[in-house]
Amino acid sequence: MTAFTNLDRLSLNQATTQHWSVREAIEGCVRAGIPWIGLWRAQVAQTGLAESARIVRDTGIQVSSLCRGGWFPAATAAERQQRIDDNRRAITEAAELHTKVLVLVCGPAPDKDIQAARGMVEDALNILLPFAQQYGISLAIEPLHPMYAADRSVITSLSEANTLVEKFAHPYLGVMIDAFHVWWDADIYEQIKRASGHILGFHVSDWLVPLPDILNGRGMMGDGVIELRKLRTAVDAAAYRGPIEVEIFNPTIWDMPGDQLLELMGRRYLAHV
Amino acid sequence: MTAFTNLDRLSLNQATTQHWSVREAIEGCVRAGIPWIGLWRAQVAQTGLAESARIVRDTGIQVSSLCRGGWFPAATAAERQQRIDDNRRAITEAAELHTKVLVLVCGPAPDKDIQAARGMVEDALNILLPFAQQYGISLAIEPLHPMYAADRSVITSLSEANTLVEKFAHPYLGVMIDAFHVWWDADIYEQIKRASGHILGFHVSDWLVPLPDILNGRGMMGDGVIELRKLRTAVDAAAYRGPIEVEIFNPTIWDMPGDQLLELMGRRYLAHV
Repeated sequence: MTAFTNLDRLSLNQATTQHWSVREAIEGCVRAGIPWIGLWRAQVAQTGLAESARIVRDTGIQVSSLCRGGWFPAATAAERQQRIDDNRRAITEAAELHTKVLVLVCGPAPDKDIQAARGMVEDALNILLPFAQQYGISLAIEPLHPMYAADRSVITSLSEANTLVEKFAHPYLGVMIDAFHVWWDADIYEQIKRASGHILGFHVSDWLVPLPDILNGRGMMGDGVIELRKLRTAVDAAAYRGPIEVEIFNPTIWDMPGDQLLELMGRRYLAHV
Repeated sequence: MTAFTNLDRLSLNQATTQHWSVREAIEGCVRAGIPWIGLWRAQVAQTGLAESARIVRDTGIQVSSLCRGGWFPAATAAERQQRIDDNRRAITEAAELHTKVLVLVCGPAPDKDIQAARGMVEDALNILLPFAQQYGISLAIEPLHPMYAADRSVITSLSEANTLVEKFAHPYLGVMIDAFHVWWDADIYEQIKRASGHILGFHVSDWLVPLPDILNGRGMMGDGVIELRKLRTAVDAAAYRGPIEVEIFNPTIWDMPGDQLLELMGRRYLAHV
């Protein structure tokens, strides 16, 4: 398990710098020597899609992914159709932003039936995959931590995501592995191996003890208990060579001066990932 | 999936009535027609072990389990030995309280190495099982929700717990299935089937949306999203016929007048479990 010696694979996921616009975040990355960024649709919409794409092109930054599509299960067919339409828009936005990956947070069940909701995720993928392929965008199923099963995603383990990907065996479907969501899983190293060939991204942050907040309590790498280097080494051994996004939801992190945060992020990435 | 028509299998886990002593909780159960109780060591210690055992005997209440043993991983051999000694005491207390089951919350890792900590759990079981057998006490591994992996238990899924139980194949080792901890698992119904023959208990509560608190945010059955009857039916189909404990950590529940709480609990149990 050797450390990185440069920032070539480091990506700033925009969720880490909530107070920065698309332009500020990208220019911050350029200043910090961070070659990648993961964009969020809400921030892109604020800046404007065309303007965001122009900033990407002008600065030469590489977009590791767009967050996020998904949120598929819904109570009625009409609502499910709206979700599909929104995901089609997300796919075209991803293409315009010159990324190859749209991250899917699959969404919660509209009622208590989590199994039926999982079926709705599958149905939606079935509809969206040909459209995504047409635009050259890969869909990355991100299994979320089980503590979000009721309000964010019915896909709660890498095992589940792998099973879905294998079922479709589609060249534009894969997984996004986020250390925060999967580190607790006794089966995680087996599942990372199993994901070899369809890993579309790797996210890092840390699990603080005690967890300060369910949603916005993630830590900077090195401040928590996740064996980040061990997981990254496993992801590398599964032949993933792409960008590694730092995604930290935490107001303490958001309130840091941006340049200082990116410098710390780079340092911790080299020390712990 | 048919409803129960009586409270024969209902048990009050003492964690649900934090403000009641052992005597108050047991007398409350007797008044409410609840035939079982799950006791906690801290409350038993406050009342005194002999006195608690006397109240159990005098009232004829059945003790479904004692909470809790476990907490095995520790940084040094001396500390691990202390944990073993404490678990031996828990086993003798369980025997004195006339229950057959000691619930194990296995504990967090003392450092970042979750795999090593899982090994320490196995080592401890290896030492404790002959002792438990001698006292006629079954050890029930309770997989905890993955959101507790860093500070309460490195055993985070029923799959893991089943694997441990199968590895030992010991007549005094089994699992405690708590709906709150496992409901999110896409594999849960397979794992409940797999647990057939070594299910030592079933706990119910509900998962509120949004979750009010990581530790003390559990809901009364029916107030959340867990498919409790479906899970209970699966546990029954796996040949479990024992008590069903209601275990709710939530200050709003604790602050209810005890008799009113037990009445509500009985009603919700019949309606939702």
